[in-house]
Amino acid sequence: MSIVVTQIDRPDSALVEKIAPFGVATLHEAQGRTGLLASYMRPIYRPAHIAGPAVTCEVAPGDNWMIHVAVEQCRPGDVLVVVPTSPCEDGYFGDLLATSLAARGVKGLIIEAGVRDIATLTEMKFPVWSKAIFAQGTVKETIANVNVPVVCAGARIRPGDLVVADDDGVVVIKRNSVADVLAKAQAREEKEERNRLRFVAGELGLDIYNMRQRLAEKGLNYVDRLPEE
Amino acid sequence: MSIVVTQIDRPDSALVEKIAPFGVATLHEAQGRTGLLASYMRPIYRPAHIAGPAVTCEVAPGDNWMIHVAVEQCRPGDVLVVVPTSPCEDGYFGDLLATSLAARGVKGLIIEAGVRDIATLTEMKFPVWSKAIFAQGTVKETIANVNVPVVCAGARIRPGDLVVADDDGVVVIKRNSVADVLAKAQAREEKEERNRLRFVAGELGLDIYNMRQRLAEKGLNYVDRLPEE
Amino acid sequence: MSIVVTQIDRPDSALVEKIAPFGVATLHEAQGRTGLLASYMRPIYRPAHIAGPAVTCEVAPGDNWMIHVAVEQCRPGDVLVVVPTSPCEDGYFGDLLATSLAARGVKGLIIEAGVRDIATLTEMKFPVWSKAIFAQGTVKETIANVNVPVVCAGARIRPGDLVVADDDGVVVIKRNSVADVLAKAQAREEKEERNRLRFVAGELGLDIYNMRQRLAEKGLNYVDRLPEE
Amino acid sequence: MSIVVTQIDRPDSALVEKIAPFGVATLHEAQGRTGLLASYMRPIYRPAHIAGPAVTCEVAPGDNWMIHVAVEQCRPGDVLVVVPTSPCEDGYFGDLLATSLAARGVKGLIIEAGVRDIATLTEMKFPVWSKAIFAQGTVKETIANVNVPVVCAGARIRPGDLVVADDDGVVVIKRNSVADVLAKAQAREEKEERNRLRFVAGELGLDIYNMRQRLAEKGLNYVDRLPEE
Amino acid sequence: MSIVVTQIDRPDSALVEKIAPFGVATLHEAQGRTGLLASYMRPIYRPAHIAGPAVTCEVAPGDNWMIHVAVEQCRPGDVLVVVPTSPCEDGYFGDLLATSLAARGVKGLIIEAGVRDIATLTEMKFPVWSKAIFAQGTVKETIANVNVPVVCAGARIRPGDLVVADDDGVVVIKRNSVADVLAKAQAREEKEERNRLRFVAGELGLDIYNMRQRLAEKGLNYVDRLPEE
Amino acid sequence: MSIVVTQIDRPDSALVEKIAPFGVATLHEAQGRTGLLASYMRPIYRPAHIAGPAVTCEVAPGDNWMIHVAVEQCRPGDVLVVVPTSPCEDGYFGDLLATSLAARGVKGLIIEAGVRDIATLTEMKFPVWSKAIFAQGTVKETIANVNVPVVCAGARIRPGDLVVADDDGVVVIKRNSVADVLAKAQAREEKEERNRLRFVAGELGLDIYNMRQRLAEKGLNYVDRLPEE
Repeated sequence: MSIVVTQIDRPDSALVEKIAPFGVATLHEAQGRTGLLASYMRPIYRPAHIAGPAVTCEVAPGDNWMIHVAVEQCRPGDVLVVVPTSPCEDGYFGDLLATSLAARGVKGLIIEAGVRDIATLTEMKFPVWSKAIFAQGTVKETIANVNVPVVCAGARIRPGDLVVADDDGVVVIKRNSVADVLAKAQAREEKEERNRLRFVAGELGLDIYNMRQRLAEKGLNYVDRLPEE
Repeated sequence: MSIVVTQIDRPDSALVEKIAPFGVATLHEAQGRTGLLASYMRPIYRPAHIAGPAVTCEVAPGDNWMIHVAVEQCRPGDVLVVVPTSPCEDGYFGDLLATSLAARGVKGLIIEAGVRDIATLTEMKFPVWSKAIFAQGTVKETIANVNVPVVCAGARIRPGDLVVADDDGVVVIKRNSVADVLAKAQAREEKEERNRLRFVAGELGLDIYNMRQRLAEKGLNYVDRLPEE
Repeated sequence: MSIVVTQIDRPDSALVEKIAPFGVATLHEAQGRTGLLASYMRPIYRPAHIAGPAVTCEVAPGDNWMIHVAVEQCRPGDVLVVVPTSPCEDGYFGDLLATSLAARGVKGLIIEAGVRDIATLTEMKFPVWSKAIFAQGTVKETIANVNVPVVCAGARIRPGDLVVADDDGVVVIKRNSVADVLAKAQAREEKEERNRLRFVAGELGLDIYNMRQRLAEKGLNYVDRLPEE
Repeated sequence: MSIVVTQIDRPDSALVEKIAPFGVATLHEAQGRTGLLASYMRPIYRPAHIAGPAVTCEVAPGDNWMIHVAVEQCRPGDVLVVVPTSPCEDGYFGDLLATSLAARGVKGLIIEAGVRDIATLTEMKFPVWSKAIFAQGTVKETIANVNVPVVCAGARIRPGDLVVADDDGVVVIKRNSVADVLAKAQAREEKEERNRLRFVAGELGLDIYNMRQRLAEKGLNYVDRLPEE
Repeated sequence: MSIVVTQIDRPDSALVEKIAPFGVATLHEAQGRTGLLASYMRPIYRPAHIAGPAVTCEVAPGDNWMIHVAVEQCRPGDVLVVVPTSPCEDGYFGDLLATSLAARGVKGLIIEAGVRDIATLTEMKFPVWSKAIFAQGTVKETIANVNVPVVCAGARIRPGDLVVADDDGVVVIKRNSVADVLAKAQAREEKEERNRLRFVAGELGLDIYNMRQRLAEKGLNYVDRLPEE
Repeated sequence: MSIVVTQIDRPDSALVEKIAPFGVATLHEAQGRTGLLASYMRPIYRPAHIAGPAVTCEVAPGDNWMIHVAVEQCRPGDVLVVVPTSPCEDGYFGDLLATSLAARGVKGLIIEAGVRDIATLTEMKFPVWSKAIFAQGTVKETIANVNVPVVCAGARIRPGDLVVADDDGVVVIKRNSVADVLAKAQAREEKEERNRLRFVAGELGLDIYNMRQRLAEKGLNYVDRLPEE
């Protein structure tokens, strides 16, 4: 038996709007270096940058049937997250499903599998982060679950968790941590902006971050010339 | 002893012209989900889209000599398909060979190995689908066969088979199946166009494809809330 | 104990300026097919093309502290080369470090690890060749060496060796060989230019390079039709 | 700040003893094809087969400090599960740590990273499932968490969940599902035993599982000879 | 529609018996360095060595239904060759299917996918060459073809072609070439045996194969000491 | 032009004999965590353990000619190190070359490429560490250098450097550092032996290495129960 969960809690949309402009690297730092998906999840075109609550969808290997079921559970602003129940790089998703998601106001797709029709998806500006690009088609024979917690590319994603994706990759922020991560990201960005001006002016990280003494204590030595081997 | 086959049968050029605009994903579906090359065959720039009869060329590892032999066998509209006799990612092909192929009216290159000078190839708009990008050079010491059947990236390609490549990858269509695949691709495209309008209007695949009953029979259950673990 | 070598010999800057326009594939050929880094070192955007003396920097896995130390050793025109002491794909380098290097006139970064903030790096036009793109952050706990000889992506690089990188990959030229490689690259390019005109005119490599007799001697046979299997 | 959770709930030891003889493939089937770790988790020697409650341990890349912390949390019969906070294949674990775990009665190690001293571990009969074998050493500079939920090789593992590993790989069973999975595994095994006898006697799966009619309905056709291409 | 071809031509069994003791490397050389499967096809235990006519079986991703159909087509002495229609590493095959094949006198399995229950298969001495070891189960929903030509791990295999597998990997010999390859393998082995005695006696390949003059002509130079860099 | 260097300096054989019993992990630690080859270099059988001075040999892709040249340069006790000039996994080495090396008293082979005839090599007890096992044969057309410095699997090896290989992998020790590394390895081993006894007795690393206070200072906290998410 498989289930589709129809009611999920999403983070406050005002918060999502505020956190959306932040990059994946910043948000990942802001929440203590957690929540990153594996580096093999890459955007099909660049630049691309989205943020939204996750609708999660399991699929059988080589079978995209459940994506059609998941589409109905998506609301405007959501991000669809698709995970195969065993590793598969088939092209589960193409231009028709993208048209359907775009018609519902979905922001984009995260899929730990393959995608196809990428020339059309690029023209449509429907962003996808995937493990592969592969024209291999799928069947519609096997059911699975929608809106249950999943592990996608090494990260646990629960329905309604916030997913942010940009050119650096994909990060998930727990639904209840969005406000906290936003505050930390803002603080981090402000500090980085101040430092950026100092870097532009030619100051060194060694001085901006007061590293010289700690480096010396660790045993770092400056020598004029490389000793002979 | 190695051979170069000088007479190969190509598909009717009028058919090739008609099938050329179709995408790899569509054609692969139209011929029963067969003929795809492995997903590691990627275009060096995007978008790119070609179709033409295959001239096939075996090469020894680290040795591009036979490509020069194969060039002479190419006619305007052909696609050159290069396969190493053992796995190799060296840069077998660069701007001079591309200039030579372009001068003969060849549409592009499919190579299960490496390619180099890709900045120039991109400027020239000479499309290549390859397994790797690698500046590593090759020698000219060992001969092999031209225009014999080959296995390229997991797919069997015979000389004169139709090769179609786009941003999604590469597909091969048997020479005698082109008319049949064209008809099926046209039918598929027409049906997809009709469905696309319904997707644009917000209809769901669940309804367009009448999936709800079959999903219920398989045991799909809708629940309001995720049961406690 | 770790060391930072503060005095390194760089190749003559006039020579660097002359060799800079040559591509990686040409230079690699010109120096006898040596010095290439592995093909997994890819530019974060294309086209990109840099040349400059190497400042080398070791880093511990998941620890980018030494990059800050290395920045101070860079002069205008240099290329920073970063190598982890054990394999790691973390995002060691982002927009702040790029700002710092750009402020010092550094041409670009070669890193056998991950990089992040690539949307910003692309906007800044700060070129990076890396093994991965990954938002995963790093710590600052462990020291290592700056300006010692390293092995980067399979190639040995000594401080002050010339590094050239373009869309095809990365090549290192020994500091004392730059003049010699330049001369060979120029000779090669001139010869290729002459041949290019012949290729454009439709001549075949078989004739331009006088290959037909040697191919026949090796046993190459032309047949009309493929023999039956 | 990092935490070490000192009290975790383990499954009933009598249940563990009963489920321990079952293989990974059987248990994975018995719990609805969930809970498998990725196929790159391989035993360092074969045959090997263990089962026990998980003590989970995060480690920084290239840093095995927290394993020493985790050892203290292990009880006889436990299985230690080690996960790096970013991908790393260093040799986190060798014969001294194995001696320490063996002295505490720990059954074995699951580590999504590298291991070393495998000749000694094999002699000691201390089983390890790892992502890599690599002599590369680690430092002790950075702290992380012990006994928090982790994602290991694509599967979520909570402290106290049951981990079973054999030559086929590793599976995790939720702590509260052990009794249920045991019952299903027993039923499955009994059924398989009955079928095995029929297979030994030369009966076909086609008949044992009554597949012939359903295959025909799907469109399977028997032909004497392959039609001409 | 899918087909099962029930009549296939097998090579003469006396020939198969004679060629069976030869190793994969020798046979691959004897037929002109063709017919090797990719190096990722590895035996689940070593040593192992089989030879027999191929029964070929396509399977859908994550679906092992057709293996049951293929079993019925196998005769004593055959080798079953299983190929997924898109890349998949699931565990398609375990101890029950092995029991069934063993009961029919099948020599072993070649599968470009995953296998499980390998501890039992090893005890049973049922040899398998596979792309992966993975406990992930499969379904029985989708049909495909049996005894049609396939591409397995980069090599084309037709039903009835001879498959030989040992610790070095897997090679396919065309059905009609078995006698010819056998003769060449015998000649090669005899020559190698004579050379082996000379190698054992301390003679060098340089002299046994008369290489010194040709090396000198190519430009090989002996120097006492490495010239300074 | 290619060269063969006939005179190389080897480390003192008494030293080699003393260092030979130490494992790769220990020696790598003893020389400051340097000199390891990449983890993809694996022994063809286990257990295996060798130590000896390196004779280095470059080979062209798919061409094993130079191995025959290198054999002549080997003395009893040496280890042959073979590196392709571009990445290649062909089977460069088999039982005849092993017979030749064994007849000369060579300890084993390190090859960043493929090897074949491994069943025979295993019977002969001739140990090989390779990147791949592959029956694919090679030609003898292209020359390269013997006994020049090489980069093998990411590590620089000069002729006469000491190579040690065991089940954990391969490490290179600079010729002039052997005495120093031996002393450090002995000291390390003695210390580890003392600690091993304490581990056997059930003491914890936390106490043996006095880690508790430093962990607390870094911020490690012990809690009874996992806080609610």
